Amino acid sequence: MKIARYRKESEVTYALGATVVMEYLNNAPELVTAVILHPQFRAEETIEKISRITGQRGIPVSTEEKPFNILSQKENCFVIAVITKKEKKLDPADHVVLVNPSNAGNMGTIVRSCIGFGVNNLAIIKPAVDFFDPKTIRASMGACARINVETFDSFDDYLRKYPGNNLYPFMLDGSTKLQNTEIKEPFALIFGNEATGLPSDFQNIGSPIRIEHGSGIDSLNLPIAASIALYSATGNRFS
Amino acid sequence: MKIARYRKESEVTYALGATVVMEYLNNAPELVTAVILHPQFRAEETIEKISRITGQRGIPVSTEEKPFNILSQKENCFVIAVITKKEKKLDPADHVVLVNPSNAGNMGTIVRSCIGFGVNNLAIIKPAVDFFDPKTIRASMGACARINVETFDSFDDYLRKYPGNNLYPFMLDGSTKLQNTEIKEPFALIFGNEATGLPSDFQNIGSPIRIEHGSGIDSLNLPIAASIALYSATGNRFS
Repeated sequence: MKIARYRKESEVTYALGATVVMEYLNNAPELVTAVILHPQFRAEETIEKISRITGQRGIPVSTEEKPFNILSQKENCFVIAVITKKEKKLDPADHVVLVNPSNAGNMGTIVRSCIGFGVNNLAIIKPAVDFFDPKTIRASMGACARINVETFDSFDDYLRKYPGNNLYPFMLDGSTKLQNTEIKEPFALIFGNEATGLPSDFQNIGSPIRIEHGSGIDSLNLPIAASIALYSATGNRFS
Repeated sequence: MKIARYRKESEVTYALGATVVMEYLNNAPELVTAVILHPQFRAEETIEKISRITGQRGIPVSTEEKPFNILSQKENCFVIAVITKKEKKLDPADHVVLVNPSNAGNMGTIVRSCIGFGVNNLAIIKPAVDFFDPKTIRASMGACARINVETFDSFDDYLRKYPGNNLYPFMLDGSTKLQNTEIKEPFALIFGNEATGLPSDFQNIGSPIRIEHGSGIDSLNLPIAASIALYSATGNRFS
């Protein structure tokens, strides 16, 4: 099978590793166009599961080593799935909005937390790191297979298409503390770039929130801030 | 200056990048044995700050390119500090305990959250990734300079030395939800390995807590879980 190192222009992306591949086969099999097994892959139970789903769906499976040398630097990757890159429209439900995110691993970690806390819709405002980068998919542990995702040229474009959510920008100088803010559904939790945060004009949008912390650090890591916000906003759903 | 790629056996470690170096110079200058500037480093204000502290402390400063080629793969690293590896005794206050952590970046992210939420004491139970790995230090954004850290051969060794903390192991099947648990100070928030979590015998230690999430993911990312716990346990300190 012809495989090339991933680039943003590539027509397909890759799920690397058995856990991530199984998430796609179980939750978005329509996006999986091929599965590649490493000749030394020996996990019988997983191979059987892969065979069953790919058989039902008519997804081709091959066994070859070369794609692993091209796509994976990790030593313990024995399965690859070739994935169609396709955005899915957001539901009119709770959203997370990432404005100008710059790190693929961070985006994947945030997707994992979104799915963990039952928020299945992610809006990305450009310029932004590539949602379909295999690093995003891997950091999400495959949760990317479950999330609806749409990319927008500007925050205004997002608002025009989805005007119905209560807006909560997270900012270091947000006017209320997270603990003291009632987050009303459907919400949009909005986060800025890793290094620069949200532009200051988000102070005039919705209800800006701060996650209070001590002076020992400048800011929380972005996936940490987003996950604390998700935990707080959804805390009573799971019991 | 003679610089070698970092190994666990190395007698010194390295802070890479201006932000991280400044954290060490400001908060643990006694651990800084040398500072190296890249010949192309041009941030006058930072250079002045570095000169002032290194001058007061008699820390040698050199300007040379080679150490950057050896130590840093990042393109935007222009300052390196050489750091003495030295643990600092924990205070009889709130602790985070990491049992068998395996990823340096995760450990650094957790240290950043600890310092952010005012928990200045980290116990590490072996086998564990190296606290002094430059990757840990860099992921902490330099917060490693502020934390007291001790490594123990076993959790029992930790308990013998610090028997006074209320113990809260975080487990997928913990008996109470985080939202419903009153975390009493001084606390020890205890977290297991990234892949395997805490051994099941922690069910019989202190008050095991779970962070409830949906079935869409197997577990939260470790730094995410630890940071949500820190946020909850310390939520009323910052205002």
